[in-house]
Amino acid sequence: MSDFRPAPAPSDLAFIRFVSVANMMKLIHRIGVETMLADLVRYIEDDFRRWPLFDKTPRVASHSAVGVIELMPTSDGEVYGFKYVNGHPKNTREGLQTVTAFGLLARVDTGYPVLLSEMTMLTALRTAATSAMVARHLAPKGSRTMAMIGNGAQSEFQALAMRKVCGIEELRLYDIDARATEKTVANLRDRGFVLTPCKTAEQAIEGAQIVTTCTADKQYATILTDNMVGSGVHINAIGGDCPGKTELHRDILARSDVFVEYTPQTRIEGEIQQMPDDFPVTEMWQVLTGAAPGRTSDRQITLFDGVGFAIEDFSALRYVRDRLDDTGDYECLDIIADPDDARDLFGMLERARPGNGKS
Amino acid sequence: MSDFRPAPAPSDLAFIRFVSVANMMKLIHRIGVETMLADLVRYIEDDFRRWPLFDKTPRVASHSAVGVIELMPTSDGEVYGFKYVNGHPKNTREGLQTVTAFGLLARVDTGYPVLLSEMTMLTALRTAATSAMVARHLAPKGSRTMAMIGNGAQSEFQALAMRKVCGIEELRLYDIDARATEKTVANLRDRGFVLTPCKTAEQAIEGAQIVTTCTADKQYATILTDNMVGSGVHINAIGGDCPGKTELHRDILARSDVFVEYTPQTRIEGEIQQMPDDFPVTEMWQVLTGAAPGRTSDRQITLFDGVGFAIEDFSALRYVRDRLDDTGDYECLDIIADPDDARDLFGMLERARPGNGKS
Repeated sequence: MSDFRPAPAPSDLAFIRFVSVANMMKLIHRIGVETMLADLVRYIEDDFRRWPLFDKTPRVASHSAVGVIELMPTSDGEVYGFKYVNGHPKNTREGLQTVTAFGLLARVDTGYPVLLSEMTMLTALRTAATSAMVARHLAPKGSRTMAMIGNGAQSEFQALAMRKVCGIEELRLYDIDARATEKTVANLRDRGFVLTPCKTAEQAIEGAQIVTTCTADKQYATILTDNMVGSGVHINAIGGDCPGKTELHRDILARSDVFVEYTPQTRIEGEIQQMPDDFPVTEMWQVLTGAAPGRTSDRQITLFDGVGFAIEDFSALRYVRDRLDDTGDYECLDIIADPDDARDLFGMLERARPGNGKS
Repeated sequence: MSDFRPAPAPSDLAFIRFVSVANMMKLIHRIGVETMLADLVRYIEDDFRRWPLFDKTPRVASHSAVGVIELMPTSDGEVYGFKYVNGHPKNTREGLQTVTAFGLLARVDTGYPVLLSEMTMLTALRTAATSAMVARHLAPKGSRTMAMIGNGAQSEFQALAMRKVCGIEELRLYDIDARATEKTVANLRDRGFVLTPCKTAEQAIEGAQIVTTCTADKQYATILTDNMVGSGVHINAIGGDCPGKTELHRDILARSDVFVEYTPQTRIEGEIQQMPDDFPVTEMWQVLTGAAPGRTSDRQITLFDGVGFAIEDFSALRYVRDRLDDTGDYECLDIIADPDDARDLFGMLERARPGNGKS
């Protein structure tokens, strides 16, 4: 082109905020992990209370022999969000994370992304916050002891959230791999819990008002059998979260009142995949809005069949977005081509030609 | 924690390659836009030839009153890819892009992302490359003249791809907004085309063997009416790409042999949304593999009802990935939390605590 036009600097709209793993950890430490867990409980609870207005869809899964890659989109009409997440149980044996994730928020009115964030760390926090939010509404009053079966990457976050939100003081820990329990004990030993490593799942459950199951094998397992579970407990079953992966014997489900996030997704992925399609469940948002009862008696077994739902990620991303202005824990990413003339993408490319004012 | 462990530097696995808009433009100029278009035709054609082995799903759309945000995933069993893309026709009036996009590739065996790339620029190239690949198989032999109705952001890329791959030398340009045509003429004037701005769509079509329609209004429009289209042309209809948005009168469809990317998606989004559900179409991969005929006579009207499919984005991302090693046009993004012990995400967070060897 003969008329010279200097290459314009990208406009503000061309950038989105990016929270790297390093910045996410900085943000968590700045806020404090327990405070952030409590904050996330509040954000998730707020979004569950306005549940009906969300665009809801079961996650879009791409399955392979060794794992799954999923996209989890949702929208509240103003903000759109989605999470990319994989689940590869065999990764642990290769020194990789079973679950890695990242997420995005965008404006519904323009479709422009505004935030990209790591979500491996953030998912660990939101999963724990969701469990704690549910337990606050369903666990027996005065719960002080939690059994934690499966002491992997979720365990410390679950423990801290359950203490902060539900008052849990004692943790009874069991894992088929004793080193996992040692790791959890080491990570939590200076944090004021009574920590009791256990040799069996049966032993771990003794005296616990809340039982958390969070194991990672992709198979039909029976972490808990029916005779192990007494009356008056809350079971926080979060490890069974994909087709073919369950943790509880079906007889426990039959004796429990089962609470879920989003029924169509949980019927495919949760513990209730073992049950008939009309097995009765209550969605947690109904408990929060008063549309359905939560715990109704001391002897009742309440069971949260948690699989993780897109709205929880949306809440977590909203929270991160809201905290970035005052923390500065982000970078700017040049991921949107935003030419001065929207119809002139080619001209933008031409003006960026090396030697044309921009290298 | 009492035992000091230095914060480890993130491993290579913790990083994914990121191609920003600036780096994408650098890459395009390094390779040359026309060479890159021809390369993309080859990559897309390769993937269309192995079509049956792809995991195919219609895009996952979140619609609002003013636009749509979509996720387009696919996988060939070894590599998983998806694109985020919005479509907001009214954006142009606000100085924003109608379409912005980014994409990702990940390993199916671990679920770990490996490449994140801007795709606003890249989508423009892959859309043009797809049109050219289709036209190479369907357009009349010896095509030299293309009518281009709609002179927006796609127009220059379409022109260059059609010349490189199909030998187009003359462009007959029409847009309801004369300034759009002026912009296209200015961008292409030094590139050796015969450029003919036209005052009407009818005038643009005169003598053209290929007719490209690429307008952006989200409505049922009639850019071409039946009496305008003579025999022996190839129509490259790429503007109608969402529910409620079409460009051609249905009588043209009835007279044409219609070729599509992925039938279930095109029936929802393409020109054929105007036709009955059993309206016959041919998928392009069938033409490429010889399973179905392409153009069979000089007088036939072939019509590519292009809406853009996930596999084309997958091909484009594969191409970018393959060119990064020798160009270095990327940054590294710390988006995967990759602790040395996969079960010890909390320990990774603790070791990153300010004052613990990492700020």
